[in-house]
Amino acid sequence: MTKVLIDCDPGIDDALALALVAGTPALELVGITTVGGNVDLALTTANALALREFLDLGDVPVVPGSAGALVRDTVRAADVHGLSGLGDAVLPPATRPVSDGHAVDFIVETLRAAPGEITLVAIGPLTNIALAVRREPRVVEWARDFVIMGGSFTRGNTNPAAEFNMLADPEAAAIAFDAGWTVKMLGLDVTLTAMVTSELLDRMRPLGRLSELLVPAAQFYGLVTADGGPAIHDACAVAYVIDPSLFTCVPARVNVETAGRYTSGMTVTDFKLRDGRPNAQVATSLDVKRFWDMVLGAYEGLGERLG
Amino acid sequence: MTKVLIDCDPGIDDALALALVAGTPALELVGITTVGGNVDLALTTANALALREFLDLGDVPVVPGSAGALVRDTVRAADVHGLSGLGDAVLPPATRPVSDGHAVDFIVETLRAAPGEITLVAIGPLTNIALAVRREPRVVEWARDFVIMGGSFTRGNTNPAAEFNMLADPEAAAIAFDAGWTVKMLGLDVTLTAMVTSELLDRMRPLGRLSELLVPAAQFYGLVTADGGPAIHDACAVAYVIDPSLFTCVPARVNVETAGRYTSGMTVTDFKLRDGRPNAQVATSLDVKRFWDMVLGAYEGLGERLG
Amino acid sequence: MTKVLIDCDPGIDDALALALVAGTPALELVGITTVGGNVDLALTTANALALREFLDLGDVPVVPGSAGALVRDTVRAADVHGLSGLGDAVLPPATRPVSDGHAVDFIVETLRAAPGEITLVAIGPLTNIALAVRREPRVVEWARDFVIMGGSFTRGNTNPAAEFNMLADPEAAAIAFDAGWTVKMLGLDVTLTAMVTSELLDRMRPLGRLSELLVPAAQFYGLVTADGGPAIHDACAVAYVIDPSLFTCVPARVNVETAGRYTSGMTVTDFKLRDGRPNAQVATSLDVKRFWDMVLGAYEGLGERLG
Amino acid sequence: MTKVLIDCDPGIDDALALALVAGTPALELVGITTVGGNVDLALTTANALALREFLDLGDVPVVPGSAGALVRDTVRAADVHGLSGLGDAVLPPATRPVSDGHAVDFIVETLRAAPGEITLVAIGPLTNIALAVRREPRVVEWARDFVIMGGSFTRGNTNPAAEFNMLADPEAAAIAFDAGWTVKMLGLDVTLTAMVTSELLDRMRPLGRLSELLVPAAQFYGLVTADGGPAIHDACAVAYVIDPSLFTCVPARVNVETAGRYTSGMTVTDFKLRDGRPNAQVATSLDVKRFWDMVLGAYEGLGERLG
Repeated sequence: MTKVLIDCDPGIDDALALALVAGTPALELVGITTVGGNVDLALTTANALALREFLDLGDVPVVPGSAGALVRDTVRAADVHGLSGLGDAVLPPATRPVSDGHAVDFIVETLRAAPGEITLVAIGPLTNIALAVRREPRVVEWARDFVIMGGSFTRGNTNPAAEFNMLADPEAAAIAFDAGWTVKMLGLDVTLTAMVTSELLDRMRPLGRLSELLVPAAQFYGLVTADGGPAIHDACAVAYVIDPSLFTCVPARVNVETAGRYTSGMTVTDFKLRDGRPNAQVATSLDVKRFWDMVLGAYEGLGERLG
Repeated sequence: MTKVLIDCDPGIDDALALALVAGTPALELVGITTVGGNVDLALTTANALALREFLDLGDVPVVPGSAGALVRDTVRAADVHGLSGLGDAVLPPATRPVSDGHAVDFIVETLRAAPGEITLVAIGPLTNIALAVRREPRVVEWARDFVIMGGSFTRGNTNPAAEFNMLADPEAAAIAFDAGWTVKMLGLDVTLTAMVTSELLDRMRPLGRLSELLVPAAQFYGLVTADGGPAIHDACAVAYVIDPSLFTCVPARVNVETAGRYTSGMTVTDFKLRDGRPNAQVATSLDVKRFWDMVLGAYEGLGERLG
Repeated sequence: MTKVLIDCDPGIDDALALALVAGTPALELVGITTVGGNVDLALTTANALALREFLDLGDVPVVPGSAGALVRDTVRAADVHGLSGLGDAVLPPATRPVSDGHAVDFIVETLRAAPGEITLVAIGPLTNIALAVRREPRVVEWARDFVIMGGSFTRGNTNPAAEFNMLADPEAAAIAFDAGWTVKMLGLDVTLTAMVTSELLDRMRPLGRLSELLVPAAQFYGLVTADGGPAIHDACAVAYVIDPSLFTCVPARVNVETAGRYTSGMTVTDFKLRDGRPNAQVATSLDVKRFWDMVLGAYEGLGERLG
Repeated sequence: MTKVLIDCDPGIDDALALALVAGTPALELVGITTVGGNVDLALTTANALALREFLDLGDVPVVPGSAGALVRDTVRAADVHGLSGLGDAVLPPATRPVSDGHAVDFIVETLRAAPGEITLVAIGPLTNIALAVRREPRVVEWARDFVIMGGSFTRGNTNPAAEFNMLADPEAAAIAFDAGWTVKMLGLDVTLTAMVTSELLDRMRPLGRLSELLVPAAQFYGLVTADGGPAIHDACAVAYVIDPSLFTCVPARVNVETAGRYTSGMTVTDFKLRDGRPNAQVATSLDVKRFWDMVLGAYEGLGERLG
């Protein structure tokens, strides 16, 4: 049983990642924290609440966090995720509220209470994570592992150099990568290989109520993303927690550019370690077939449970 | 009765500022938060605790905060403040501990509990302030006023462009100046006119136990600062709260440089408001005589009380 | 007899500086090179040609140079100098053309031909100078002296941090200051003390034809500059060549900021030499009375000669 | 008959590129200009002179240019090219000197004299090119084509972000890419596919005197470059001039980063043209077999001629 705390900005692929958590009995979800990212914090939080109920995640706490980036102006991706953040998927509004407190405190206190037990999974901008690290540097020791969806060692998506989550808060990303742990980085290099093909979409259609989330979300995402189909980026981070052997990972020194005119938010990845010791394990390839077998297996189990 | 919350990094001139608070009955101190700055957080906190007892500040909470800058590596000024942070002054170690919790939460919750009542006075790097603003943007509305010692519209001290408190955390300073309130900026332009002359030092010598703090601190400071005598920078911020009429202030747009090679932390001050509305009232001159009359009056009263 | 080569962008105060050259028998002008700056290169060159004839400068070569900055987009100051570059002054159009070749070559070859003899005076953006230094680093040895109008150790004019000539080409300025010579820097700190008061203007009115340049140029300039009257910045550089004792100069390390968001083009001036040896003598005060005696004396002599 | 002017910094692969020129009767070489790059200007020039004679290039002018970068400190690659710049190859010293004048003037005047006829091929840092563009913007119209070896749209070699020629003078590269022409960019993406395998090396051994250059140069290069064999980068630029159909090229907007902490000199390549029109044709693949057939054919012809 692996305990995970998910920091997210749902977001279509965040929703698909939470569905993967919900469909994986080997994971114990200890909390969902939200951050402004794909859409505004109010929406990412509302979506997290709606998903908690729709996915039958029980009474796991949902705790809102940072509305905007640490230092910079806000960047959003509503063009990619739709105005609601969930594309064309329409979920029943949540009936239960957020927990008291702030995501940063929740992260710090939850990790403090169970040192070495909880894997922190961040699939949005790293603002909450950076603030938690600054608030209490020992979170780095307390976390069992720190896994992100973000960055790339080849190229960006929002612009040629930077991936959205990193671009949305470069300073936070720099803090997170320099914090002292070994970041498990699932970047565009692998996530763009995890495309929802039409065949895969067909396998999601019969999944009952769950399909009402999966199918319109994936379809909307596929319509607006230019790179040949919807890639369920964030689910890769959860998949890594479930089974790291799906990925080839290589140690690297990742420096996040914060000063560039064209390159802010770029995860400059040095596999040759010219300037220092590795601070990350960077995924360089994904066993796509096994990935989808696992993901669809989880979705099928969850679909049955949800009816 | 003006309520003040002091965020500080004692630091010699922080000590002299706290002595001014202690000697001014019209001020009610509601808390002291600490930040890494002149010396490390452990020392600034220890000094704040020692000063609370030495200056007979009662049971006002002392709450430690951020150890280092938001994004950057640490800059210290131990060469200016001595290894202990208080120059050659030796205070009895504190007997009572810090309060639970973190400075950022303390600032947020204290202001939330008394909106419009408390003046926030920051006389160290603005890390805690920036984190409070990011944590809860409404602190800007809740603060009665926000007064800092920091910056300059003419030149720096740590380097030609930047004053120490701003240089130590440029990103935090940029957040604080952009937060939406009108920053009252007491910069080097005025604080360097508040020098402890030998005549003034002579007036501090007969102040009993208090002189054991004031005199060696000011003397040490005078030995190491190059600009013609010890300037009690931080006391200017407290003096402003007590009597703003001591200062001439001019509205200005202050942008904190975060990208420069030689200018990071510079408070670029535009009195002509070329690019926008003012975000600060910048002190441009100090009535030095009235300032010292007030400060020495306060010290004398406090000296009598302390014996 | 001091030989001078003037690199300029006329420009009202450039015109007043050339008039000072023309009225000073102790100076031998060996060439005028032009650069895009206050207005476009075509206009600065046309103005230089017109001034050569109007001021009776003989057959001194006028050689056009760089149209724009080394790396950056063009910044102009037509709001300050009028569309023509000479305010309301209207000169007869020139009858003789520019010399063949390019300013950068002219500078290099002229200095090469008379090592140690010629003082290079730059009163516009330093683009030509930087290119000459890159083209032939030995110009630094060949120049008798290198005198500029530009920069400031206190504040800017185009924006709070930067003076126009430096802002217009920060990279060129950085190259010029780092070239290995000791730059004589006449910045806003002194040039803003050289104001044309109404009394001084009255003394220019009776100067015959010359007054047709001086008076409308200075008046226009006074109307548009906000700092209390027209300052004849560029004339200060020529005045320094004629009599350095008019100025107090202090050795300093000047670094030109090229990376700042708010501070590009700032001449960060370190009189304390924290990081290295001096690369400049920076003027810190001007004997205003003696300055005007000299300038008006020169103008009167020239006025008589021109009729 | 295609006229080419080669701006280079020999450099092992520059030597192999000049050998390709020498062995291609369809090319008419109109000049060689040199720039400091792989090694110092004195060496790149001496190597160009030695190569002119060794490769029997007749009396084509060799004209030295810029010793260092436009704005930055010098970066060299002597670790890659050996102290002489030609690895272990030892050529007879040249008997004939350089031409008078400077590379920048030579480029400007040569292109001016034959507008539309000459292809400018730059295989070192772009300092001379940038200065020529600034000196005379019409070179952009006069050049028949502008082809470079440099940059990358995936990753760097000197560091993870930047290729050596671009890193060595980022500002010059930015000027060259923004000059108004369509840069033909042969970057690491394709040049790293043009490796000298041991089989290819065997085919170079029997080439008589020429093999005394090719073999030790390529071997030295292979020993020190880490990426699986010596890639004859610069020869790709010449190959493009001879037969563009060897390469797949895609229009792109290339912005050269000049502000980054980790990314200066990176050619940020946007094939999606998010922010503007294309300024480059970027090679994305090379027909390796046809490339080597052509190159070895040229070397064999040249080898015969040289004996």
